[in-house]
Amino acid sequence: MLNASILSIGDEILIGQIQNTNSKWIAEKITQIGCSVKKISSVGDNYNEITSEIDTLLNISDLLIITGGLGPTHDDITKQVLCDYFNDYLVENSEWLEKIRKQFSRRGIQLSKRNQEQALIPKNAKLLYNEIGTAPGMLFANKGKYVISLPGVPQEVYCIMQDEALKFISDVIGATSEDTILYKNIQTAGIAESTLADLLQVDEKLLGKSTLAFLPSFAGVKLRIGAFGNNQFEAKNELERIKSHIISKAKQFIISEDEKSYSQILGELLTRLGKTIAVAESCTGGMLGAEITSVSGSSKYFLGGMQTYSNDVKINNLGVSSAIIDSYGAVSRECAEAMSECIREKLQADIGISITGIAGPEGGTPEKPVGTVYFAISDENKTYSDVKVFSNSREIVRERAVQNAILMLIKLLHSK
Amino acid sequence: MLNASILSIGDEILIGQIQNTNSKWIAEKITQIGCSVKKISSVGDNYNEITSEIDTLLNISDLLIITGGLGPTHDDITKQVLCDYFNDYLVENSEWLEKIRKQFSRRGIQLSKRNQEQALIPKNAKLLYNEIGTAPGMLFANKGKYVISLPGVPQEVYCIMQDEALKFISDVIGATSEDTILYKNIQTAGIAESTLADLLQVDEKLLGKSTLAFLPSFAGVKLRIGAFGNNQFEAKNELERIKSHIISKAKQFIISEDEKSYSQILGELLTRLGKTIAVAESCTGGMLGAEITSVSGSSKYFLGGMQTYSNDVKINNLGVSSAIIDSYGAVSRECAEAMSECIREKLQADIGISITGIAGPEGGTPEKPVGTVYFAISDENKTYSDVKVFSNSREIVRERAVQNAILMLIKLLHSK
Repeated sequence: MLNASILSIGDEILIGQIQNTNSKWIAEKITQIGCSVKKISSVGDNYNEITSEIDTLLNISDLLIITGGLGPTHDDITKQVLCDYFNDYLVENSEWLEKIRKQFSRRGIQLSKRNQEQALIPKNAKLLYNEIGTAPGMLFANKGKYVISLPGVPQEVYCIMQDEALKFISDVIGATSEDTILYKNIQTAGIAESTLADLLQVDEKLLGKSTLAFLPSFAGVKLRIGAFGNNQFEAKNELERIKSHIISKAKQFIISEDEKSYSQILGELLTRLGKTIAVAESCTGGMLGAEITSVSGSSKYFLGGMQTYSNDVKINNLGVSSAIIDSYGAVSRECAEAMSECIREKLQADIGISITGIAGPEGGTPEKPVGTVYFAISDENKTYSDVKVFSNSREIVRERAVQNAILMLIKLLHSK
Repeated sequence: MLNASILSIGDEILIGQIQNTNSKWIAEKITQIGCSVKKISSVGDNYNEITSEIDTLLNISDLLIITGGLGPTHDDITKQVLCDYFNDYLVENSEWLEKIRKQFSRRGIQLSKRNQEQALIPKNAKLLYNEIGTAPGMLFANKGKYVISLPGVPQEVYCIMQDEALKFISDVIGATSEDTILYKNIQTAGIAESTLADLLQVDEKLLGKSTLAFLPSFAGVKLRIGAFGNNQFEAKNELERIKSHIISKAKQFIISEDEKSYSQILGELLTRLGKTIAVAESCTGGMLGAEITSVSGSSKYFLGGMQTYSNDVKINNLGVSSAIIDSYGAVSRECAEAMSECIREKLQADIGISITGIAGPEGGTPEKPVGTVYFAISDENKTYSDVKVFSNSREIVRERAVQNAILMLIKLLHSK
């Protein structure tokens, strides 16, 4: 197994100004190809602190991936730190200079001296091409240890990792015959954790040195296989073996065999069935439509919808009967059902789906506390509805409501 | 200055399965009250690795905040590690046992032995009350160093920090007369970084030992003041002095003096002006409405809107003339203007706001490449429109479009 660590550099991380999404993304990608991540850390733009952390991390890992500190301003010191760390010196890389020169001329801007310095690369480092930005990635190899230095901008990290670094890391892993763990997630829905465990009959004989984690969330239990092998090939076989076992035992509860979002799973189902949908949202204010259309190509099945935040809009524009709102309130099963039926009809969709609830922090009552959300799905035959009471913050109530609505529709379509 | 570090514990972080939002949140909160964060790190559920990292972090910090590993299952070992680290032993806390007993009985579940063990607290640790979960926070004080151990669930972290830990940290900081840095962000819009720098005339005399960072983003330049003082009181005075200078020089470009989201700023403006709005969204599929309604109390000014993803819905339901779409296309200034006018009229709102564009990755043309987004705002007097071409992924194009739409409206309302 290739032991790896991830280091992010930047004061903005330490003061909590930005969410460090790079580390999570890198950890996920390199774990998938067989690295074992030992430690993830962040330090500020400080020469000694960066040097000391590189030392610590290289002590416990074969591969260190660093993000940040490669920009053109005075606080960007990663390149100098690495140069000193590896007793290297900077030389101008003519290919890179040409690339940024062209980049600037396309934008009609003069290449400043400061930006020109982005083409200075440590002599013994390999340049990793960066399609988007002015700083390239760099790869240092020294005494069996590898350091990959990347810019801090997430899009540039994704780009360099996908175009260059992941291939390199795979090759290093492939060249060693060391043991490997491969991970895979299988998403289930509609079955409790303990019932699923009984059904799968997980034991020593099934797992050997591999692992199977049960990760329950409000939306179902995710199974994480960690397949162990003495090399990549063996680990892949183990993964297939354990996956087949799970599928044979729990097929009817599996909604995805890949790491897919609910909106992707929904999109595939709707595309396969050739159905169109429309949404009517109250407390989520558009989040359901936003989530469904986060999938590229969703225009094939998503027609549109209405954000009916006020009761007037529910009645006058969507067409919910005012008697329903007067009798049951806007947050009610009856209102949700009417919303899904009205939007389906209005937009001439095959399926209408609605959400109405109390996201909070205000507006709750003893009968309908904050977090109460009603859902309805209407198709050519029937209207289905449900209610959930979520806890926690406004943000989480809304997020859970959206995921629950999509899951409800997935389950319904799955049974078709 | 109180030096602090943050440590997150959990294999799920190292394999990139979850985004570590706790560290960012804690870093932000403790920085605001005057801590200097030295390092943020994450290690797995491994006894030796946790112990070794606690050692490293306590070496460089006076305060260490740990999240994760306090649950009831076998992989939760933080309590045992800390007990051993501080030569302490577990004793049952009767108050906490009573609390979780009540919690379980409310849910109608029997308190298992495993859950009962959540009431075992190291003898010399102070219990930090956790309103929501079954694991309390714990505070260890030893030889002038402080360790705060919190559960991993973000909501529980927020709750314990806000109810208990932040007050304690403030008191520790207040009791010392050491130097302090306080941070504050001021958001500007409509002025380039270099022009703003010239306008502010930032120099040694203004700053002294304090700092002023320029943080440009697609939406404007954020100024981050880092005000230095020999104690809290001095730092607060410095902060006020630098803030006043900035306001006096750049008042007309400041859209918020606090760390507020655009949707919060918009909400305050609309509330103050007593105006209502409605949205019409194409490529963002509901994200604009979702963002506006992320603010609690937004029902005062947000009436609703339409997600008009398909052209049929734009024409038949929203009321955009088919001639406009035939002549100019759905992604055009003309269509955006019509969308904003139609939704304003349809929902009887004071202001209509619309977005239509090509989020990608497909659907671009040489004239209108992927990332082209048209915006329009319509009020009782006039319809304003704009176009932007964003680059990068579908997700980023949509996110930027939403932020740009809100910013466009903020600027318009600001000038009233």
